[in-house]
Amino acid sequence: MRKFNEEKELSSMNGALHLRSQINEIIDKIHANNYQNICWLGIGGTYASAMQAVAHMKEKSALETFVQNAAEYVVTGNKRITKQTLIIISSVTGSTQEMVEAVKRAATTGATILAFLDIADSPLSKLANYVVSYPENEQLKFFMVADRLMYLAGEFADYDNFYQEMDQNFAQAIVEVAKKADSFAKEFAAKHHEDSMHYFVGAGNQWGATYSYAMCYWEEQHWLRSKSIEAAEFFHGTLEVIDRDTPVTVYVGEDMQRSLSERVAKFLPQICGNYTIIDTKDYDLLGISLQYRGLISPFVFHEINNRIDAYVEHINRHPMDIRRYYRQLKY
Amino acid sequence: MRKFNEEKELSSMNGALHLRSQINEIIDKIHANNYQNICWLGIGGTYASAMQAVAHMKEKSALETFVQNAAEYVVTGNKRITKQTLIIISSVTGSTQEMVEAVKRAATTGATILAFLDIADSPLSKLANYVVSYPENEQLKFFMVADRLMYLAGEFADYDNFYQEMDQNFAQAIVEVAKKADSFAKEFAAKHHEDSMHYFVGAGNQWGATYSYAMCYWEEQHWLRSKSIEAAEFFHGTLEVIDRDTPVTVYVGEDMQRSLSERVAKFLPQICGNYTIIDTKDYDLLGISLQYRGLISPFVFHEINNRIDAYVEHINRHPMDIRRYYRQLKY
Repeated sequence: MRKFNEEKELSSMNGALHLRSQINEIIDKIHANNYQNICWLGIGGTYASAMQAVAHMKEKSALETFVQNAAEYVVTGNKRITKQTLIIISSVTGSTQEMVEAVKRAATTGATILAFLDIADSPLSKLANYVVSYPENEQLKFFMVADRLMYLAGEFADYDNFYQEMDQNFAQAIVEVAKKADSFAKEFAAKHHEDSMHYFVGAGNQWGATYSYAMCYWEEQHWLRSKSIEAAEFFHGTLEVIDRDTPVTVYVGEDMQRSLSERVAKFLPQICGNYTIIDTKDYDLLGISLQYRGLISPFVFHEINNRIDAYVEHINRHPMDIRRYYRQLKY
Repeated sequence: MRKFNEEKELSSMNGALHLRSQINEIIDKIHANNYQNICWLGIGGTYASAMQAVAHMKEKSALETFVQNAAEYVVTGNKRITKQTLIIISSVTGSTQEMVEAVKRAATTGATILAFLDIADSPLSKLANYVVSYPENEQLKFFMVADRLMYLAGEFADYDNFYQEMDQNFAQAIVEVAKKADSFAKEFAAKHHEDSMHYFVGAGNQWGATYSYAMCYWEEQHWLRSKSIEAAEFFHGTLEVIDRDTPVTVYVGEDMQRSLSERVAKFLPQICGNYTIIDTKDYDLLGISLQYRGLISPFVFHEINNRIDAYVEHINRHPMDIRRYYRQLKY
């Protein structure tokens, strides 16, 4: 298995889960101060993660929660963001230009800003009210925040039970996904590493990740053309350009929007001979109860996508770290 | 000019503007009953129009307003939709399956449903509390609702002045756009009617329309591959797959997010030799004051896109009404 270190992965995920006591201390305090709404502020990959957090909450929550694109916030503002807003951000570098500008503007509203930063000492850290510093695992961090907020709002009664399973079994279950998916991923990469266009379809808590995978991985890191489309929207346009040879991948998860992705998966074989269905149901996830599988579907897909990336990168001899234009040219 | 009937267009737009007294009567009543939030419910093209309505409101409004995809609502619900919610929908056929199911579910919450229906006697009309029946002009209808809501909330002080200009000058100003854009549109169609992929970039109140133009026009009606991308997001992935020959069109409007599209327009010539910038500033819009031009930018683009469509349709001898799969196969 290329680029796979089981111990490192386990330790990374378990370390992220251990942030929960720190996160809960922060969130419990914010909850006690009567926040009014929750804003997930991001751009690019973090905008996508923000979409996932909102989709994740929508299944259970009556709280007002929304995504805000950072660059759009800088020019348009958002009058729903006030001193009673909790803003959650995440950044690897802590220096993405749109994020720094957006958080500066947000800070003037008096909103409470919780930042997850891979690098603790960065421009963004100085602007946040709370900083949690730990590398990677963005989605896990976001979901832990969302889950605590819902728990405190009385919307997640079995929170303790769920996190008991997560703490005990999540990391190992996800690592097993990587092992099981590896040969599939290798074949997938061999078949699709030169696609002139690849369509990715996703729904629910996987939609943000689908958007991100097409844009932040295939386009940005592999320099491969791709388009993401919400499963619900697939039938309102995109289907008409799919033919026998068009590469289409559908993510079928186990959250409440499973049926929307299933609908695409069932329809596709009639018109397309080059589709791939990736279904979380094909993975065991030992120690995770049936009713929680949907909540962690995005992590299953993420692990499978990582495997695909490792092989596409190698076959194409295209290191994923290089950029043609980003941070090479000014914009 | 192909497929262009000035008198018919003028009468269509002016007729839509005349709906305003009917719309205001409805909205004033809903406002008096203390609604809590505003949901724009749609799928495909109407989902896109909903995005535009929300972007339009965000410039001015502190009201809680959001987009809800109809198919997603059917499976996931949305606990922010309650009996104090105003839901706005629009439908040409009045029978789109996801819309009918979603509105049925929404009706059980006791939300107030305002429906714009091209066909008055349709399944959706029976489910709505208020029906306004008039063909086309969806965006204009949505903006009139949004503007009245903002006016009543004290967020649109010069509402009367704006609509005086709209009533007097809007339709003619837009028709003049069509005439001025026609030769450009013909050349554009001649150059791009066979593109293997076309990228459309938009921002602000044009983002929804950009999404829709790529998906509901190029993909669905021309069977041409295309991808839409938010101007703010362009730099976070998509730029890496753009090269000398990649067709990219950027819509540069005059709303508050103009700078985001401008940034793409200024960047592109460095890496791409096949781009097109469509800028509303190139059009006169006689009788529309400078401060209102941004509000109607989407209508300028819509008219230009219509011109392009007329020529692509003819050159490709591909009638825009035919569908390869939609409503031909079950899904």
